[in-house]
This record gives sequence, C-alpha cells and structure tokens, in this order.
Amino acid sequence: MSVQPSRLWGGRFVGTSAEAFDALNASLPVDQRLWREDIRGSQAHARMLAAQGIISAADGAAIEAGLVAIAHEMESGTFVFAPGDEDIHTAVERRLTEIAGDSGRRLHTGRSRNDQVITDTLLWIREHGVAQASALRALASTLIDRAREHLDTLVPGYTHLQRAQPVRLAHHLLAYVWMLDRDHARLMFALNAAGESPLGSGALAGSGFAIDREATAAELGFDRISPNSMDAVGSRDALVDYLVFAAQLGVHLSRLGGEFVWWSSEEVGFVVLDDAFASGSSMLPQKKNPDAAELARGKAARLAADLQGLLATTAGLPLAYNKDLQDDKHYLFDAADTVDLLLPAMTGMVATAQFQADAMTAAAGEGFLAATDLADHLVREGWPFRRAHEAVGGLVRACSARGVGLTDATPDDLEAAGLQGVALPNLTAEASVEAKDVPGGTARARVAAQLEDATERVAAW
Amino acid sequence: MSVQPSRLWGGRFVGTSAEAFDALNASLPVDQRLWREDIRGSQAHARMLAAQGIISAADGAAIEAGLVAIAHEMESGTFVFAPGDEDIHTAVERRLTEIAGDSGRRLHTGRSRNDQVITDTLLWIREHGVAQASALRALASTLIDRAREHLDTLVPGYTHLQRAQPVRLAHHLLAYVWMLDRDHARLMFALNAAGESPLGSGALAGSGFAIDREATAAELGFDRISPNSMDAVGSRDALVDYLVFAAQLGVHLSRLGGEFVWWSSEEVGFVVLDDAFASGSSMLPQKKNPDAAELARGKAARLAADLQGLLATTAGLPLAYNKDLQDDKHYLFDAADTVDLLLPAMTGMVATAQFQADAMTAAAGEGFLAATDLADHLVREGWPFRRAHEAVGGLVRACSARGVGLTDATPDDLEAAGLQGVALPNLTAEASVEAKDVPGGTARARVAAQLEDATERVAAW
Amino acid sequence: MSVQPSRLWGGRFVGTSAEAFDALNASLPVDQRLWREDIRGSQAHARMLAAQGIISAADGAAIEAGLVAIAHEMESGTFVFAPGDEDIHTAVERRLTEIAGDSGRRLHTGRSRNDQVITDTLLWIREHGVAQASALRALASTLIDRAREHLDTLVPGYTHLQRAQPVRLAHHLLAYVWMLDRDHARLMFALNAAGESPLGSGALAGSGFAIDREATAAELGFDRISPNSMDAVGSRDALVDYLVFAAQLGVHLSRLGGEFVWWSSEEVGFVVLDDAFASGSSMLPQKKNPDAAELARGKAARLAADLQGLLATTAGLPLAYNKDLQDDKHYLFDAADTVDLLLPAMTGMVATAQFQADAMTAAAGEGFLAATDLADHLVREGWPFRRAHEAVGGLVRACSARGVGLTDATPDDLEAAGLQGVALPNLTAEASVEAKDVPGGTARARVAAQLEDATERVAAW
Amino acid sequence: MSVQPSRLWGGRFVGTSAEAFDALNASLPVDQRLWREDIRGSQAHARMLAAQGIISAADGAAIEAGLVAIAHEMESGTFVFAPGDEDIHTAVERRLTEIAGDSGRRLHTGRSRNDQVITDTLLWIREHGVAQASALRALASTLIDRAREHLDTLVPGYTHLQRAQPVRLAHHLLAYVWMLDRDHARLMFALNAAGESPLGSGALAGSGFAIDREATAAELGFDRISPNSMDAVGSRDALVDYLVFAAQLGVHLSRLGGEFVWWSSEEVGFVVLDDAFASGSSMLPQKKNPDAAELARGKAARLAADLQGLLATTAGLPLAYNKDLQDDKHYLFDAADTVDLLLPAMTGMVATAQFQADAMTAAAGEGFLAATDLADHLVREGWPFRRAHEAVGGLVRACSARGVGLTDATPDDLEAAGLQGVALPNLTAEASVEAKDVPGGTARARVAAQLEDATERVAAW
Repeated sequence: MSVQPSRLWGGRFVGTSAEAFDALNASLPVDQRLWREDIRGSQAHARMLAAQGIISAADGAAIEAGLVAIAHEMESGTFVFAPGDEDIHTAVERRLTEIAGDSGRRLHTGRSRNDQVITDTLLWIREHGVAQASALRALASTLIDRAREHLDTLVPGYTHLQRAQPVRLAHHLLAYVWMLDRDHARLMFALNAAGESPLGSGALAGSGFAIDREATAAELGFDRISPNSMDAVGSRDALVDYLVFAAQLGVHLSRLGGEFVWWSSEEVGFVVLDDAFASGSSMLPQKKNPDAAELARGKAARLAADLQGLLATTAGLPLAYNKDLQDDKHYLFDAADTVDLLLPAMTGMVATAQFQADAMTAAAGEGFLAATDLADHLVREGWPFRRAHEAVGGLVRACSARGVGLTDATPDDLEAAGLQGVALPNLTAEASVEAKDVPGGTARARVAAQLEDATERVAAW
Repeated sequence: MSVQPSRLWGGRFVGTSAEAFDALNASLPVDQRLWREDIRGSQAHARMLAAQGIISAADGAAIEAGLVAIAHEMESGTFVFAPGDEDIHTAVERRLTEIAGDSGRRLHTGRSRNDQVITDTLLWIREHGVAQASALRALASTLIDRAREHLDTLVPGYTHLQRAQPVRLAHHLLAYVWMLDRDHARLMFALNAAGESPLGSGALAGSGFAIDREATAAELGFDRISPNSMDAVGSRDALVDYLVFAAQLGVHLSRLGGEFVWWSSEEVGFVVLDDAFASGSSMLPQKKNPDAAELARGKAARLAADLQGLLATTAGLPLAYNKDLQDDKHYLFDAADTVDLLLPAMTGMVATAQFQADAMTAAAGEGFLAATDLADHLVREGWPFRRAHEAVGGLVRACSARGVGLTDATPDDLEAAGLQGVALPNLTAEASVEAKDVPGGTARARVAAQLEDATERVAAW
Repeated sequence: MSVQPSRLWGGRFVGTSAEAFDALNASLPVDQRLWREDIRGSQAHARMLAAQGIISAADGAAIEAGLVAIAHEMESGTFVFAPGDEDIHTAVERRLTEIAGDSGRRLHTGRSRNDQVITDTLLWIREHGVAQASALRALASTLIDRAREHLDTLVPGYTHLQRAQPVRLAHHLLAYVWMLDRDHARLMFALNAAGESPLGSGALAGSGFAIDREATAAELGFDRISPNSMDAVGSRDALVDYLVFAAQLGVHLSRLGGEFVWWSSEEVGFVVLDDAFASGSSMLPQKKNPDAAELARGKAARLAADLQGLLATTAGLPLAYNKDLQDDKHYLFDAADTVDLLLPAMTGMVATAQFQADAMTAAAGEGFLAATDLADHLVREGWPFRRAHEAVGGLVRACSARGVGLTDATPDDLEAAGLQGVALPNLTAEASVEAKDVPGGTARARVAAQLEDATERVAAW
Repeated sequence: MSVQPSRLWGGRFVGTSAEAFDALNASLPVDQRLWREDIRGSQAHARMLAAQGIISAADGAAIEAGLVAIAHEMESGTFVFAPGDEDIHTAVERRLTEIAGDSGRRLHTGRSRNDQVITDTLLWIREHGVAQASALRALASTLIDRAREHLDTLVPGYTHLQRAQPVRLAHHLLAYVWMLDRDHARLMFALNAAGESPLGSGALAGSGFAIDREATAAELGFDRISPNSMDAVGSRDALVDYLVFAAQLGVHLSRLGGEFVWWSSEEVGFVVLDDAFASGSSMLPQKKNPDAAELARGKAARLAADLQGLLATTAGLPLAYNKDLQDDKHYLFDAADTVDLLLPAMTGMVATAQFQADAMTAAAGEGFLAATDLADHLVREGWPFRRAHEAVGGLVRACSARGVGLTDATPDDLEAAGLQGVALPNLTAEASVEAKDVPGGTARARVAAQLEDATERVAAW
C-alpha cells in the first residue's frame, strides 16, 4: 500500500491505494509524451481564465511563469516525476503548485481531466499528422521520381502472381502514388476531425464559469469547438479516423513491401536493394535480406490491430467518459510511431533501389504476355471476343506444349487452335503497352500524362 | 470431377475442375445479388462499344435486348443458373450468348472480369449508400425529435457509470446525433471514394480498343475515372472506406444500445421499451428483454470484424488483381446488411421508447451530483479550485457517512470539511444544469441552440 | 407491425412487434441448420422427463412421435416455417404443439432456450469437428504421401524469400504436417471444451424439476455436465476454442497457399498445378491462375475475423445470458464452412500438384546456397565461426561481382576474401543437405525418420 | 548513414546502413528484456558444443565466464549497448567477443539467430507462464473465498440485464472460477506448445555440426525437441497459443470488471469498492470511480488485438523465417504485461470489495423473480408448461399494471390471468434458489458441493 497525499482527487478518500491498482491505473509511462500539449493547453486555458476575469491577472502570470518553468524542466530532462503523479496532467499541476502555490491550485478552474486529456490528444494528432503528411509526400515524390526515370522500362504485369500483360514500370510505381493520395485524403479527414476543440466541456456537462471556448480553441489552432460536452469527452472518433489512415496506409506499404520482397528474390531479380536497406544473416554468409520490405509487409497487421483495439475499446460504452478509454493513447502512439518508422524507410528503400531495367524489359517480352493482344487483333478482324479468346487459349496451349512462345507458333499450331490462315500481328511487349491507349492505360503518352497528374496532385496536398 | 464446358476461360485448359476446387472457387452464392449492377454495367459498356464503332449497331442492339430479357428473368425469378456459372458475370454472359449468340460473345470486348467486378461493386455501394444515408437521417431526426420533447427533462450524467452531474435528456440524446453526423461524413467520404469508375482498366493494363471511359463513367453515375489501371483493379480502398463507416457507426449504435439496456433495467428504470421493440423469455414469464438494444450493442463486434477481415485480406498482396480479393464482397454485404437491420430497429426503438421523465428528473436531484457546483461556488468566493475541490470532497465524505445528501449538511459536517461558515448556494439539479452556460453546455438556452444546430446539420446532409 | 400470436413468450405482452425489430431479432435464417441437434436435444430431454416421471409416459411418447415426424419433414424439405418462428427452437416447438397438442406444450418443462441453444450448438461442434478431423487427416496424409515421393528431391530453402540453404522437398512438405498436427491438438482441445453438457442449466439458475442431467448428457454423447448454471448459459468459450483452431489452421493453409502461388509463378516454376485446381482468365487467354492457393491465402483473414468478432462480442457482458450472443452462430458457421471448403481443396491441390523435381533440384545447386557449408568447413578446420562467416561473406561478394557461383571461385577470389590456400570442400546441394545430420535436419536418414514419425502421429490422431 | 562495423552479418556488405532502415530494423528496445533467456540459451549451447568436442574445453570455459560476466553487467545495469547492437543476440555476442576474443567468435557455431530467437522467446513464455499460473490461482482462490463467505447471500440473477431469477452470490462468483479454470487449461496448452526446443534448427535446415539437441533441450527445461527445422524457425504457434490464453482471460476479466462497474453504480449498489481499488475525479469531488474494473473491461480489446495482430502477421508467409516475425515479441510482451497488471488488480479488487449482502438479498426478493417458480408450481399441478408460462405472464402483466409484486396478487388478478382458484405457493427468493436442486443449480447443498469441487480443481492446477 502506498500513501499518495498529492492525488488530485484525494479529498473524498480515507483509504490508500493498492500497488496493484496503481500499477494498472497509471498512465504516466504512456502519456508523459503529451507534456508539450498539456502545457500548451494549460497556458491557453489560464490566459483565457485571466482574460475573462475568472482568475486574477496575478494568478494568470504566476501560472504562466510556472508552466514556462516546467516546460524548461521537461525539455532539459530535469523534471522529476513524483510517486503520486498518475498521469501527465497530475504531474504538471502538482509541479505547478509547488512553484506557484495557490495560483497553481486555480489552474483547474472550469475544466476537468476529461476535457483536458482529449484536448491534449487532439493537439498531438494535429501536430503529428502535419509532419506525417510531409513524410507521405516524400514517399510519393520518390515514387514519382523513380517512375519518371523508368517511363520506358517495361515489366510484366501480374494478376494472380502470373504474368498477365506487359506494363511500364512507371505505371506500376504510380499505382502506389494513387494509393498514397487516398491515404493523404484520409489523413486530412482525420486532422479535420481532430480540429474540434473539446476544451470547456468539463467532466461531461460543460463549465460553470464564464469561460471563452472560442478563445482557447483559436489559440490552440483548432478549427471550431465541439457542440456537445458529453460527446466531446466520451468520443474517440478522431483517434479512430487517424488509425483508419494508418491502417489503410499500412496495407498499401505492406503491398509495396511484399512486391519488393518478391522482386528482389533470386527468381525474379527485378530489383537489387541498396545495401543500406538490406541486412545479412548471422549464419548464412551469402544472404542479402530485404528486411525493410518484410517489416513493411508485416506492420500492416500491427496498424490494423491498433485500429481494431480502439474500436473494440469504445464499443458498448455508456456516456460519457469511462476509464476504458485510457488505452486510447496506447493504440494512437503505437500506430503513429509505426508510421514514423515506415515512411522514411520505404522512401529510402525506393529511392536507392536498383531497378534491373534490362531484366524487367526482357521478361516483359517473354512467353505469352501478348496473348490478349492477339485476341484483340482477331476481334478487330471481326471475331467475337469470346471466340477469339478461346482460339488464342488453344494456341497458347499448343505453343506451351512445345515450350515455345506465341511468336514461334507454326502453321500447325495455328491450325490446331482453329486459327489457320491468321497472320500474327506485332506481338512485342512495346506494341502491347502502346495498344492500351486509354486514360489510365499503359501507352507512353497516357503514362506520361498520368505522371503529370500525379505530380500535380501531390504538389497540391 | 465436373466437366464445365461453358467457363469463360476454358480455351487453355484440357482437364476438368475438381468439385472441391469449384466449391471453394464459386462466388455465385455471394455475388449474384450484384445482378442489377452487372447488367447496368454491361449495358453501359455495350452502348459505348457501339457508339465507338467497336461493335456494330446490330450487335449492340442484340446485346441490349438480351440484357433486358435477362433483367426480366432475374426480376421475376425465372433465371436459371447453370452449373458452370461460377459468378454472376459468367452467368449473365452465358445466358446472353444463349439469347444473342455471337453478339453476346462480343460483349466482353475491351473489358475483363477484373474491371467488371469492381465496377459492379462500386455501383452497389453508391446505390446502397444513398439509401443508408436516408436511414441514418431517420435515426438522427428521431433522436432530435425526442430531444426536443425532453428539453426540460433532467437526468443524471455519468462518468465511470457513476452519477457525476445532472444534464438534460435532450443534451444526452443529442450527443448521439453528433456521432451520427460524423458517421454521415464517413459515409460521404466512402461514396466519394466509390465514385471513380474503374471500367476500362481491363485485366490490369487498360484496354486495347478505343473505348470511351468517360462515357461509361457518366452513364453509370460515377464522378470521375480511375487514373491507373493496375490500381483500379487491385485496390479495395473504397470498400474499406465503406466498412470504416459501418464499423464506426457500429460503435455508436453499440453505445446507444448499451445505454438503453442499462436505462431499461429495473435498477435504473429510466426508460420503458415499447413492447414492439422488446421480447420475452421462453422460460421466465415476467421478462421483457431489450433484445434490439442488446443486438445493437453486440453488432459493433461484427462490423469491426468485417473491416478487420478486409484489411487483412488486402495486406501484402502484389499488384494487380489477386483471387484473395474475392472475399471482399462477403465483408461488404455482411456489413451493409447489418447496417440495414440496425438503423430502422434503432430508429423504432428510440421513437417508441417511453422515457420516464419523472424518475430521471428525481434521480438528477439526488445525492451529490451538485458537488461540483458547490466547489465552483467556493471558487467564485475566492477559493483556489483545488482547495475547494478537496473541501467539498470532505463534505461529501461526511454527509455520505451519515447517509444524507449535500443539502442536508449540518454545521458539524461543514466544519469537519473545513467549510465552517460557508452558506450553501442553490444546489438543485436545475441550478446545476443552468450554470453550465457555455457553448456545448447544459443550460437550457445552450441546449436549445444545439437542437437547432443539429436540426440544420441533419437537414443539410 | 405484425401480430405474432405464436411467440413462446407472448403472455406478458400486449403490443405487437415491429417489423424492423423482428428483422433484427430473427435468428432463423442462421440457426435453422441446427434442426438436427435441436430435435436430438429435445428427444433426450423428453425421454429424461418421462423417465423421471416429470411428464407422463404418454406425453413422452407423443413428443417422441412428434419430433420424429418433424425430423422427417425437415429431412424431406416439407417443413413449413411460420411467420412467428423466430428461431429453430420456436419452430420445432410450435410444430410439435400443432402435432401433439398439450403434450408438445410440456416439452419445455425444466429447460429454457438459454440452455437449449448452447446445447444444440455444442452438439453441432462435436459432430462437425469429428468430420473436420477426418478432413485434416486427409490433407496431412496427402502431404506425407507427396513427401515420401520426394524424399530425394532437393529444393532451395528460403529465409526472407532469399535462397538460404538446400533442403529436401519432403522436409519442406513435412513442415506443414507438423503445423496440422498442432491444429489437430487445438481441435481436440475445442471438442473437449464442447464436451460439457449445459442442458439443465435452465435460463440461468438450473431447473426446478428433478431432472437427470447426467442422463441427457450421456444420451447426447457429452463427456460431463457443466458445474455452474450461470456460466453454462452465458459463456461461449468452446466456440472460441473452435474458432482458435480454425484461425490457426487458416494461417497454416494461408502459408501453404502462398507458397503454391509463389512456386507456380513463371519465375519460380517449381510446381505446375493441375488444371482441376486452377482457373483461367476471362480476358487473358494464356493465364492459368492458382485460385485455390490464393483463396487459401486470403481466407486466413476471414477465419481470424470470425475469432475476433466472437471475442469482441463476449467481452464486457454481464452474467448470464445476453442477446448479443445470438451472433455467435454467425461466426461459428462461417468459420466451419470456410474450413469445410478449404481442407478438401488444399488436399486436392497438393495431391495433384506436379512438382518440378528437376527444376527444384537444379535451383538447389545454384548460386551460394552452400556458403554456410563452406563456413562450417572452415570452422571444422579451426576457424572461429564468426571469422569464417565473415570470410565466406567476402568470397560471396567477390564471386557475385563476377557473376559466378562459389564453386567457380578463383585463387584471386579466395585471396580477396582472406581465404588463400583454403581447399574448397564438396559444396553440392546433396552434400549440404546430408551435412545437416541432426534430429529435425535435412539429412536423408533424418527426413526418412521424420516421415515415419509424422505418419505415426497422424495415424494416432 | 551510420557505419556499423560490428554487425554479425557484415562480411558480404560494402555499403552502410541508412538510419531510417536501422530505426525500422532495430528490435533491441523490444527484445532486450530477453537477456536472461539469451544468456541461458547461449550457456546451454556452449556447454553442449564443448561436451560434443565441437569447441575446445578452453573455449567453452572462456565463453561461460564471459556470459556470466555479461549477466552480471546486465543485472547491475552496467552493460553498455553499442550503436551496432541491433538486437539482444548481437549485443551479447558482441560483448562476449570483447571479453573472450576468438572464443566468443566460436559461440555461434552450429546455430543461427533464427533458432536462437525463438528459443529465447519460448523460454520466456515458459518462465513467465508459470508465474502467471500462480497469479491466476490467487484470483481463483480469492473468488472462492468470497463465495464461501456469501453462500447464504442471495442476489438477483440477470439475463438481458433484466432480473430473471434469484441466485446465491456464491454461485455467481463461482461462475468466474470456472472461466478461470478453462483459462488455466489454455495456459497449460500454451506452455506445452512452448515446450518444444527449436535449438539446433539453425537458419532453417538444421546444423552441420554434431550437436546434441536433446542435451540443450534438457538443460533448458524443454519437454522435447522440434521435429522439423523449417517449421521450428518459421512458426509462431506457441506464441499464438499464449495470446489465445491471454485474449480469452481478457474476455473473462472484462466480464468481471463490467459486472463490478454495474454493481458499484448508485443505481444497483450491490458492492462498495475499497478506496484502495477506486479513484476520484479531478473535477467532481463526490466521485468514487471503479477504475480497475473499467480498465479490466477495456483491456479485453487490447489482448484480442494482440492476438489478431500476430495471426495476421504470420498469415501468408512463405517458409521458413521472414523478418515480419520480428513483431511477434511486441504482441507477446504487450499481452503478458497486460495480464501481469490485470490479475493482481482484480484479485485485490475482489478481495477487498464490500458486498452489500442486505441490499442484494432484498433485491432478490422483489418484483417478479419468482414467476418461473409459480409456473413450475402450476406444471407440478398438471398444467402444460407452455400454458403455465402464458398464464403467469398474464398475472405478471396484471400485477405490474397495479405496481405490485406477485405475492400481492388479488383474486381479480388471478382471474384475469386465467388462474382463478390457484393457491400461490411459497414464492420467496429462498424457496426459489432451493428449488433449483440439480447439479450446477442454486440450491444451498448444490452450491456448497460446487464450492468444494472448485476448491479441489484449483488446488490441482
């Protein structure tokens, strides 16, 4: 049992708190990283209290000075947490009271930890999200740069991991830019959701003092104030919105990572990772492992689990605040930290990857990737598509049985497929990609236009 | 083994398909409900092919007539699925070819099932989402109506499921409206994401014919066309966005449901559910069970699981299309069906609920719900908040030990709490709610204003 | 509004039930597949009631005859569900009462739907699980058969999807058998968990009649009776245990599927899938897609989501039964059906797969897969492992730069790596696998022994 | 870019590693807590190497001494991690080589980080799991103690959170003991799964040295050795089994927590939490919040998310080891730490809870909880159950309309329900619980027997 005289809520209590309870209850290890936001929020609150005459100018000044001093202590690592500091809010107010005495005891006038903690958290998301938007842009720009470099590199496009049709490497890389573009939209959605100031919602019912919610919201950079105090302290929707961004980004980076794992295998050989983005084996001297790509592939699970965890935490909870919500920051920070690790690593991996253009282009010309083009050719000659598809399928079977490609088809092969007398058109990979001359298709001009669209789009983020 | 001569892709294959494989591979039981969208998509595609001169006007007319005939068969329940119909696309094209012969075999010119299936699915989301927006509005409007009715009903507000401060029932009900407002924004985000036509992206590389993607997009009501063919056929982002809406809505309805379960318990007695939204027990004759509320509470798990499932399905997949994605519709339909069940049931439950205004208002005046108001009073008298909080905590302890409320505090109680000589202010629930006269607070005028804001907001959806 | 006079619990209610509520509340579409278990459970219950003298022998006989008749109606598809049949239990009792009058009205004596539904569900798991154990054995046996066939086929073993060391194909395939062995243990754990009869727990408190719980448990094939009535009707642990089996099996089959997708790619070419377990493309005539393998890869997400869903549904629920639990069967049936689809399809895919032994063995001898063997050789010559590892790494770099394998290392290469004067040992793949002569290693005798162990183990399931 | 000369795998690499990559790749912050297991594993490995003559006795002694020294450094906090220490294995071997020179460089002979890391992790689970079994026993024993104390306290039993039938508080509390009993079985299942030594599986193919796997397994306390090297290094099944234990325990503690939240509300008032297991509000002086119970309710989401995360991480991975698996320890440690927090807190909360026996028993006698007993009485008088149920339902309606309980039913009420002339039996709560005289029921003798069963069961864990 530990006696904890400095708790913010000790008045009503006679007993002491059990260590087992304290250990479970303590959120300081997780939430102390919110100290900047907590101090900023308290500064805005105190200034407003003084401006409204709810506390005196002298109290306001003492609080301000105390908070500045605490910020210095935090920044310099000299702040000493006390045993009774159950969370960052308690720690700051406890220290403020040590510094500023009764002035410090006036800081909490007209607010509650319930509105304070969600205010701090939203501030953190807003600031952190802006930085992540930059990291997102860096990755998108890198993909665009590499795409521009490889407008003329052809590569097999796959469906079902089977070679399907040749595409441009630029086209393939740009596919990821559009995914990131949607992730950016989700991030903006989340930052907007986080733009609603809950400060002034109190424990759940609002404040009994003539506080100025618009003033604190404006000072803290929020876009607007929350319309309902019970909703404001009891909802974690903006965190969910952020986790949705992270989870969906995680899926996209997982796909990118998986692709680089596959491309960098000996069997495929389409990319050689820079040594700076690979590692070796403790036992196998020859290994060059695509660790960053694998980690990106695997972290989608973690980001989705964080989302899942918060959704399940909030389901079924009665209004307004419940302690279950304390875990919200675990999910938020874990996801944000993961995104912080992933984006620069993926950017570096893509930026330094050595695409094996010759191997890619050669592979794009092998086998049966132009089969569709032959079917399309027959259709242009008047065949119904489904019959053309079936006949070309037969020709593939005939050639495949002999171990040759379509361009090596003999008259016998053609006859076996019911294609006697058909003159094969140009079936090169180049002809194939150029034939897809539709918006979003693989023709050079189309991909070049897409490159410009993507560049503009990312510039406008 | 079953011989399946009518498969769309049989040309290359000599063997037959194993029953175990067919059973796993078949998506018809799930995707046949897409028949309307599949036919609409095919109509738009065929009209465009004819307009572009890719197929003849006669072929176009034959296809159109055939598709109309198939729609009638579907509508009237006379359509007969064949053993080889592995999905709805196959079924429609197979039947069309029976009706229209080689014209039918020309329908698939310039498209693939890969762009077809995602086109169908997005169309379904767009139509279904609009209907769900109406259902969402019905629930929000009902909550607003009930709130308007109960502007003057007080009810204890809870944090930690402990009575905290009195609030207005209207305020409590409006909290849910703001949640739904955010859900509506998420639904609009999803419908916008689904507004990008993938048609013309082919298997993965675009189309080798001079198709007009803008024309089909416009005819089908899409807002724009997809910029990258590989992304278009390989991403399921818009489905995820929809599932995010559903999962977060699920959390909110789970909270509403949980609250009604709690409110309708004998212990609380704040609401009596209409018999039409409750059920009885097969064994216990006296029971009236809040089944709808419980089901709403539980379905959050299901909607979150659907989201989780699709996220995990798509993680790590290489570009472009992979068969794993076939399960996307399982998650989508399960979530959409669940939302379709929940929204009207919750609307009806709320609309017919008999709020026990007298019991609520009485409870709001009991015990120590005005303790904060007393502390606030002391602060206005000059006490530092933290000291006031502590002193009132002591008074609560003293009164609680004697089993009385704050208004029954004796001079001895006051002295024990260090409050000797303090004159207690008006500590009624009414005074308490009126004191929270800040935006988003519980004062009557504030809640009335909030009611108007909410009404306008929902009207603008 | 629909009037529903036949509800089991109508006595207390005056209103009617809303359609929206009925739609949400109805479980019949999901639980009607439990009819066999429901009838079996009712038969056992009725026999026991008669044996205990709680109902008369005549009533018992009438119930028995009625239930047999209902079973025939169900079996033959002539059973007609009535509008008021909200679940399978209601439907059976309603029909029984039509057939047997007041005797039917005595069936529910001493039980509740709460113990009835969980009894039915556990019975279903027990029967279904036994069948799935057989399907599991079929897959394991097939893997063992294919392993036996390929004891002498070498294949590159991968870590990080990079070639690491050669292994035997048999060894690789047997790895999956041990995974399935653990899945079998989980299935047995679940079936044991489901072996506790809840019948006689009533609504939550037990039964007020002198029922014989051991008798019904024995007749229904349960192993024991539940020790606490509240736990019995309110827990879904055995279903979770089953879903754990399914989810973990899903992961293993996902790995197997992913491996077959990779192996069957043009780039790898280690396996050619039988046409019966692959499909083609509607647009690309040359494609042979590993659909079954992809679906297996993707279904892990679904099975995990089912587990997740049920866990989240049950979290936080107060004792004893809550309606939220109605969704339990959705998760259970979806998972069981998925397993039913996957196991035979994987069995067939593995059984018919054409392993490309020559290509595999050739690949196992290429490149640097024997690098570790060289390092081990140096260690045997007295080098510290870490120095040997580093030196061989240098040799790999030198050879790799020249585009040759280890066996082509020149004296210059050796010198560059600090290995001057070292005589290269036998570095063939065969030598490499034979060198791993430890239990669980790749030496032929070890894998042969493992094969026998695995065969015995599976035989003992 | 940071130059990292001390990497274990540097031989092959010429470039340097990027900071962004290092940050993503580093696992030291997570896995350094495995230092004890890593050193124990290395000691066992080195002793075996020396015993087998693979390294000299002198090397073995130098390694042993070095590892002991490192353990002291770790224990005393004087161990200094170097920038190149990417994980705990690297750190220990790096330091060992500093201390013991080439002897240290021989430690990794015949093993790989792939078998090392999973060995360490399983050791950790085995040791940690045993400690958690004790904590589980403490909670179960506390529940049993409190149950014994309250064998004669009656309390309303609920279904649908509606009062259903009276039960004994002992019966209610024992329901949780049986849940924990099943959790214990799951923990034992996991510890058995973790009892298979992977050491000697090398990178994936086993070891090229004549190592003695049985010897290291025995020294490390494993039950057996893994049968397949690829499976051993690539599977995380035992971790999943542990997470299944944690997730299902989480559900049970969530239910217990939810129940205490509800019981400690003002409305219910069945329990008063000890001050040591509750906390106050920073704003509301009168609050006593059930934080521990709420946190337990919420943590189920976190434990389920950890399970979900690991399942999704492992799905689809090719054999054998992949870097994605590095996140396994994040999930494992987060879950284990959460369980470590929850069990003692719940034990303390239950041990110190003040059950309000009078309030509970009074509530158990109110209203209509004996309605089933009346119906049962009618059945004993010869009524068919369904008719009795309906008639009592009618009586409840009549009494309820007049605001009285069943025992206040007038002849008019009885007649209205078709029960004219029926003499009401003893309908007290005591009579009701005694009537449930079946195994697992609420009669005093039955619950007393159950208490003994539970005590024996837990003693036998």
